[in-house]
Amino acid sequence: MSGDRRSAEEADGSGRLAAPVIPRTMRSAVIFGPDDMRVVAKPVPEPALGEVLLRVEAASLCGTDLKIRSGSFFPSQPPPGTFTPGHEYAGTVVALGPGVDEFRLGDPVVVEAHRGCMRCENCVRGRYTCCLNYGRSDKGHRAMGMSVDGGFADYVVNHVSTLYRLPAAISFEEAVMLTTAGTSMFAVDTMGGMVAGETVAVIGPGPVGLAAVQILKALGAARVLLTGTRESRLRLGRELGADVVIDARAANAAQAVREATGGAGVDAVLECSGAEIAVDQAILMCKPAGRIVLVGYFHGPVTADLNRAVKTGLTLHTIRGEGNRAVGRCVALAERGLFRSSPLITHRFGLEDIGEAFDTFAERRDEAVKVVLEIGARA
Amino acid sequence: MSGDRRSAEEADGSGRLAAPVIPRTMRSAVIFGPDDMRVVAKPVPEPALGEVLLRVEAASLCGTDLKIRSGSFFPSQPPPGTFTPGHEYAGTVVALGPGVDEFRLGDPVVVEAHRGCMRCENCVRGRYTCCLNYGRSDKGHRAMGMSVDGGFADYVVNHVSTLYRLPAAISFEEAVMLTTAGTSMFAVDTMGGMVAGETVAVIGPGPVGLAAVQILKALGAARVLLTGTRESRLRLGRELGADVVIDARAANAAQAVREATGGAGVDAVLECSGAEIAVDQAILMCKPAGRIVLVGYFHGPVTADLNRAVKTGLTLHTIRGEGNRAVGRCVALAERGLFRSSPLITHRFGLEDIGEAFDTFAERRDEAVKVVLEIGARA
Amino acid sequence: MSGDRRSAEEADGSGRLAAPVIPRTMRSAVIFGPDDMRVVAKPVPEPALGEVLLRVEAASLCGTDLKIRSGSFFPSQPPPGTFTPGHEYAGTVVALGPGVDEFRLGDPVVVEAHRGCMRCENCVRGRYTCCLNYGRSDKGHRAMGMSVDGGFADYVVNHVSTLYRLPAAISFEEAVMLTTAGTSMFAVDTMGGMVAGETVAVIGPGPVGLAAVQILKALGAARVLLTGTRESRLRLGRELGADVVIDARAANAAQAVREATGGAGVDAVLECSGAEIAVDQAILMCKPAGRIVLVGYFHGPVTADLNRAVKTGLTLHTIRGEGNRAVGRCVALAERGLFRSSPLITHRFGLEDIGEAFDTFAERRDEAVKVVLEIGARA
Amino acid sequence: MSGDRRSAEEADGSGRLAAPVIPRTMRSAVIFGPDDMRVVAKPVPEPALGEVLLRVEAASLCGTDLKIRSGSFFPSQPPPGTFTPGHEYAGTVVALGPGVDEFRLGDPVVVEAHRGCMRCENCVRGRYTCCLNYGRSDKGHRAMGMSVDGGFADYVVNHVSTLYRLPAAISFEEAVMLTTAGTSMFAVDTMGGMVAGETVAVIGPGPVGLAAVQILKALGAARVLLTGTRESRLRLGRELGADVVIDARAANAAQAVREATGGAGVDAVLECSGAEIAVDQAILMCKPAGRIVLVGYFHGPVTADLNRAVKTGLTLHTIRGEGNRAVGRCVALAERGLFRSSPLITHRFGLEDIGEAFDTFAERRDEAVKVVLEIGARA
Repeated sequence: MSGDRRSAEEADGSGRLAAPVIPRTMRSAVIFGPDDMRVVAKPVPEPALGEVLLRVEAASLCGTDLKIRSGSFFPSQPPPGTFTPGHEYAGTVVALGPGVDEFRLGDPVVVEAHRGCMRCENCVRGRYTCCLNYGRSDKGHRAMGMSVDGGFADYVVNHVSTLYRLPAAISFEEAVMLTTAGTSMFAVDTMGGMVAGETVAVIGPGPVGLAAVQILKALGAARVLLTGTRESRLRLGRELGADVVIDARAANAAQAVREATGGAGVDAVLECSGAEIAVDQAILMCKPAGRIVLVGYFHGPVTADLNRAVKTGLTLHTIRGEGNRAVGRCVALAERGLFRSSPLITHRFGLEDIGEAFDTFAERRDEAVKVVLEIGARA
Repeated sequence: MSGDRRSAEEADGSGRLAAPVIPRTMRSAVIFGPDDMRVVAKPVPEPALGEVLLRVEAASLCGTDLKIRSGSFFPSQPPPGTFTPGHEYAGTVVALGPGVDEFRLGDPVVVEAHRGCMRCENCVRGRYTCCLNYGRSDKGHRAMGMSVDGGFADYVVNHVSTLYRLPAAISFEEAVMLTTAGTSMFAVDTMGGMVAGETVAVIGPGPVGLAAVQILKALGAARVLLTGTRESRLRLGRELGADVVIDARAANAAQAVREATGGAGVDAVLECSGAEIAVDQAILMCKPAGRIVLVGYFHGPVTADLNRAVKTGLTLHTIRGEGNRAVGRCVALAERGLFRSSPLITHRFGLEDIGEAFDTFAERRDEAVKVVLEIGARA
Repeated sequence: MSGDRRSAEEADGSGRLAAPVIPRTMRSAVIFGPDDMRVVAKPVPEPALGEVLLRVEAASLCGTDLKIRSGSFFPSQPPPGTFTPGHEYAGTVVALGPGVDEFRLGDPVVVEAHRGCMRCENCVRGRYTCCLNYGRSDKGHRAMGMSVDGGFADYVVNHVSTLYRLPAAISFEEAVMLTTAGTSMFAVDTMGGMVAGETVAVIGPGPVGLAAVQILKALGAARVLLTGTRESRLRLGRELGADVVIDARAANAAQAVREATGGAGVDAVLECSGAEIAVDQAILMCKPAGRIVLVGYFHGPVTADLNRAVKTGLTLHTIRGEGNRAVGRCVALAERGLFRSSPLITHRFGLEDIGEAFDTFAERRDEAVKVVLEIGARA
Repeated sequence: MSGDRRSAEEADGSGRLAAPVIPRTMRSAVIFGPDDMRVVAKPVPEPALGEVLLRVEAASLCGTDLKIRSGSFFPSQPPPGTFTPGHEYAGTVVALGPGVDEFRLGDPVVVEAHRGCMRCENCVRGRYTCCLNYGRSDKGHRAMGMSVDGGFADYVVNHVSTLYRLPAAISFEEAVMLTTAGTSMFAVDTMGGMVAGETVAVIGPGPVGLAAVQILKALGAARVLLTGTRESRLRLGRELGADVVIDARAANAAQAVREATGGAGVDAVLECSGAEIAVDQAILMCKPAGRIVLVGYFHGPVTADLNRAVKTGLTLHTIRGEGNRAVGRCVALAERGLFRSSPLITHRFGLEDIGEAFDTFAERRDEAVKVVLEIGARA
């Protein structure tokens, strides 16, 4: 994925790509109903004001995609028969909408999922992942692959504020992991940003948790403790930099974390599992004045000893998505070799085989961690 | 309480009070066992380095005092037969320990409860209410009336960092409410400090919640909504500035808050009730990106829809006590007439009648809100 | 006029807004060259996506307007002969652009001056007054009355994110002061937001400084010290709540501030004068760890004892305009009676007399503070 | 020596610390007057409450030491003939004062220079390097080697809050650089902590600036640009990780920084030179909304285009010393190999040769960067 970047001459001097580059129709995975996703032909979309058209080169599957396929529609999701999911992808800029000079044709980019309405009070204050007009595309909000069409297709339209230019050192396949990593990075932002010298626990060695391990170490954390229930994932976590891994089936995770810290507890916890028990565990793991970030989605009500949180002055932050331009910071870490995508990628499929890709990811076949779709010729 | 402040001449020029002022023994309420508190004679303590001796003029009862009387000992509480509770009080400086020049003899002061060890990493960073040496008086930590003797006595020793000089406009009785108010103020600090123009819900019209109503309005909040279950308290809340009061027995409090805000929800919630259901309610009340501060202590595990918190980007802060010099800010508001103590004080007793004072407060006799002990001659 | 631009009478059965509400042309003050501003007829603009058309009811003059009239063009200012200044105004919503449901026809509103591009990294992070595309209207940035046409006209187009609905208690004339006050409020935000109990100095009793005095007191500041060189302005400052006023001609202002604080200095300084000497003075006024906000524009290089700032750990913040939705907080304070506009307004003119209005303001005739243009029938 | 001051050999059966470990007198560099520093015998000090006695193993010279030797006395400096400077050192814990259990005899530690009074409002809020009782040792404040005796001696007393335990991987000599690095780290803290993905300029390749280069890279900065006037220092900066080095004699540094960033400017600037021109340059280097930290001490008034700072929304932070426990974070980075001390150390002397050490450092003989005193046997 190094020498094959689109050369500048593919774009003519006028700012338009040569005619054959962008066809009228494209392949696109479309949700027709619960558990009914098919790859069909759709018109290639056109970029509007401030947007670009991307040729998707690679994409990856996220837990949210599984929910979408199985029928958990977002309130503002486009109707069945038209909607294309996919919010983790990287591609090549192939057309520019009006007023775009931030990117040039041929630029390789990776995306973040959220564009806020940029007019509500949260967006105006920089909290665009908490947009008060969430799902209202008439007001400019876009959750790619959730409230509008996403990247499981040959082409997709993105707003320039959701794009990050890729340096030559990062392949498209590697880049798609950086959207995932953006969530982990945003969690670190949200709990204060500065983790140098700190001891941090990560609950849940899924892709976000494993990315968090790397990011915490890259930002100077002294020690990272990872808890989980799958041995292969914990082993991977150790390879990626976790100083201590704890098998939560074999041990009381909170107690093990306390023991591993000489009884002191940790400065911060990133909860990336979505397990209902994890909040209570996180509270038990923390030092007084510690910070917890809830990253995972929970399936039901959560019960926890919040009185301990009150008595020890903890803060429970939450995040959704990857705000504050966190993906850009991940690109920077990856360029410097401080974040490695490859160990997270276990499976690759073509777009036509997206059904098998989903099954592989959903069933965690062969210890699947991240499943990538190779869509473009250059993925 | 205006013209009768101790005049300067009561203290001689040497920095010592005249002989008769400080006796060798004093009256002191002492915990002998569960539900066994008696007023007995104890030696007057002596101030050490950085400390002063106060003659207690007025004190008030807090929910924590009820727990202490009924036998819920703090891990580091002094042994039965010696321990004097009381952490909300105001008094007169009557002796200075070595190295004290921040106060002069005769100064009227109000206290905060916590002095950190000032050597652990939390204290060094300004988080002294989360001291890692909580309860270790050998290291300098003092939770007045909890881990060391407090103010239900004629005299008490305080570190200078826990004292705030009272302006002439504030009586001792009014001053003791400011320790309570300090908790409410610290909650506001913790959620960001700036509430001007915001809509804030307060759950629980106890003393801390009622103080919060006043403080939020004093700091420029546009609207304050108060929810509770006692009609008299809600009425009082309205008198103190609440724009909307909601009877949580008659209505779903969260739904009522949303309706009262046109469906939008509030910017922030101060949870001051300690009711297990309140966290779930607070989450439902908030706008995306809203802040919740958990101020009340919970009696057991709390169950809440934390997934909604995650999906809407909420932050759950917690506080314990009144850190960050919050009591001082309350003194300033009270001096300017922006915080009124009197409406909160419903009952007054002498020190000898402390048992009845506790019963009145515990049973909320006659709609008791705050019960004050008039201890000194000038209370 | 497009079909989706509904006229005001459609929404108003009262007959107050008589048809035809929106003419094709309007009166507009236009800059033709240095010191050459004339009121001419211009087409009424049309609101685009996310915008509304306002009928301007009242506007006020700011120091920046003086510079604009005298020829200090902004780099991105529209060309002479077309450009209409004016960035402080209030009016009535008379037409809605596509996709607008935040406001209704007939709504009275006040404005803020800045709409960011909402796509650069500063805008995306909530720092829209520091937009990296400042002046680039092709990318969506608008500095009303500076980089695009403003409010010294019968009609003006604003983006919804720059508007705040006025409660009935605030007149249009009073409202225009709130744009000015927004700058003062933003300065308070920027230095941390929480000023309760603090002692703050304000340098420069111009409109922004005088507004700052009120806002600081409204947010609970214990003491506000105002320094300036005009006796009438200092007197007004005292009426508006300043606890101490210092005539900077008669005294060394910094020394006077220190004396008035018992030698301690202040917690924070708002520099609103733009005087080159003021930074040095502000540094001398501050306690260790104090905060300074530079609000005034300086005319040339500033010389100051920055070494003292370093040795005492000061922070020098700066602001431009009124970001972070500060105007909305001022509306809330004004509605509660905590901010009074009337004392700041000394002169009123019709739009046709804008030249005299400018002269009055520029020369501070008759102790002019704020000069208001009564433009609409309901000003 | 009091009975509770255990000697080191009591704790160490290895015989490494041979008896009698602690003599009654020691070698100590003492300031007798301007440019008159001599190594004389002084009594070994005793640790008080919360303090330990260290045997100094290694120390290093800082610019402040040069000022002290040449006669620039701190206001609160001990009198000539008694005062021992030195605030960068590492050593071995050889005796514990009362109440100390944070350290054990034999522990290797590195220090930070400041212990606040821990009772003023700044200390209580975590701003101990801005202690309002600076220099008042009667109130507990200690600036080691500045307001009380420091580490250019065989033994020194430190408060436990100023000590950081050294892991085995860090030698005493390497450790002393970490006090210097603590200043650079504190600068990063102060400007927000999170520099991942950012472009940062460092002005001044002195020890603090060179340490800053390493720390910025260790915390994930994308690009670090270093400006200076000495070729050897710039070369060293590049070895330590600077992506771009700029010779400020050959180029306009600010312009060069802008060019190296494609005209955009940098996200932040650390001013570590103390050159009066540097503030103006820093302002020119920054993007809108950028942050500047003033780390260097200036010799006289500073002139800068602060109007540009105001117009672009910059913040000028300042720091003094190494607060917020920054040295501890440097120890963590060094342990992980992310901070290398060795390249900064150019010269080594014994304590007896401290005069030559000072001369070497003052005159920058042989391209001296950091000059280390090897004091203990284990340096």
